[in-house]
Amino acid sequence: MLRMIAFDADDTLWHTEDMFQETQQRLSEILKEHADDKLVESVLNDTEKRNIRLFGFGIKGFTLSMVETAIELSNGEISAGQIHEIIMMGKDMLDAPMRLFDGVDQTVRQLKDRYQLSIITKGDLLDQTNKIDKSGLAELFDYTQVVSNKDADTYRALFQSWEIAPESVMMVGNSIPSDVQPVLDIGGHAVHIPYEVTAIHEVHDEDPIGSRFHRLKDIRELPTLLERIELRELI
Amino acid sequence: MLRMIAFDADDTLWHTEDMFQETQQRLSEILKEHADDKLVESVLNDTEKRNIRLFGFGIKGFTLSMVETAIELSNGEISAGQIHEIIMMGKDMLDAPMRLFDGVDQTVRQLKDRYQLSIITKGDLLDQTNKIDKSGLAELFDYTQVVSNKDADTYRALFQSWEIAPESVMMVGNSIPSDVQPVLDIGGHAVHIPYEVTAIHEVHDEDPIGSRFHRLKDIRELPTLLERIELRELI
Repeated sequence: MLRMIAFDADDTLWHTEDMFQETQQRLSEILKEHADDKLVESVLNDTEKRNIRLFGFGIKGFTLSMVETAIELSNGEISAGQIHEIIMMGKDMLDAPMRLFDGVDQTVRQLKDRYQLSIITKGDLLDQTNKIDKSGLAELFDYTQVVSNKDADTYRALFQSWEIAPESVMMVGNSIPSDVQPVLDIGGHAVHIPYEVTAIHEVHDEDPIGSRFHRLKDIRELPTLLERIELRELI
Repeated sequence: MLRMIAFDADDTLWHTEDMFQETQQRLSEILKEHADDKLVESVLNDTEKRNIRLFGFGIKGFTLSMVETAIELSNGEISAGQIHEIIMMGKDMLDAPMRLFDGVDQTVRQLKDRYQLSIITKGDLLDQTNKIDKSGLAELFDYTQVVSNKDADTYRALFQSWEIAPESVMMVGNSIPSDVQPVLDIGGHAVHIPYEVTAIHEVHDEDPIGSRFHRLKDIRELPTLLERIELRELI
């Protein structure tokens, strides 16, 4: 019996990844004398991967990695003014207006009476907290938690602290490795709603299988899916 | 009746602020052609304050603020190589070895049997989680929570989620505005253990008053204070 619907936030409730991609495009523009788009992308990705151990996920670390990439690709020739521009690009991301996906508000409100609701999100703590505030949905969620890593242990500890069995949780998110697989691994249910752009660290090879895994195109299809699951349980 | 002892982490369980001060000294060194120590300090503090709304507390935001300060004070003349050095200084801070205060380990173990223990700390999520892991004390704490702001509302929500009344909590920390005052304000108890260096945003004007406020010189004095309080309650 499902008791809680847990949501990923970035690129599940609101747009984020397109902003990372646009900012990377602006970085390519700044570095066009030194490298083509492909090289900027590959060096930036390598830098981010190398830094993740210390920086974790989020915009502040991304900004520092952009600065490092710019210094490396320009062989130290990039100007202080250009580095300042890169930092301002990071601040613009942190200060960006909230862009909820269509139907998020109505869907969350629709589920509110039937289920406990939670947000489990990865990234900079303050940035994520600010986004939840800006979404106008904060009071609809029973729990919100920013985590630095989304693995099976993280979910297990979180559900335990919320005193709910994984079997009673449906996690909804756009990433197979972060939102779907680890929740299935500990016995929970998961819905994958793919986003138009997938972050490099969220790419997956194979789809999970089994009756606890579902895929939807649009978050507005969620209430109907849940009704179907409940009916099936009753038969 | 006290049931939980909650600890601040940075500069209460382990050294942190001295590392910020040393790093600022290295920034002054890099900028010595452009500004004296005092000016570097004042511009860096202003930059940090301006950025706190977007960056929150922590080393990544501090690093970005150092880069901004360097660009501003050098009138854009600072080299990419020097900016790279500043970013490496930030990484060194994130990667620094854990330096627990003397007596922390024994004190926490001593209190473990009598009380629930928790950590409530401010800063970058991954950095703080890494530090708790590095401390070797993680399994002694019933709860650990990284927060982006330490005000009365934060503490109230946290204690509620842990199902404990503020009156049953003793918060231990080095900062009056972050660790002591907000906990006293919601009816809890607090112990102030001053640190040798106080971060600019943790400076306070007046001491709190009242029987729920205590001050110690050393964390090793905590078990005796708690015994005295319990005895007083029994009379």
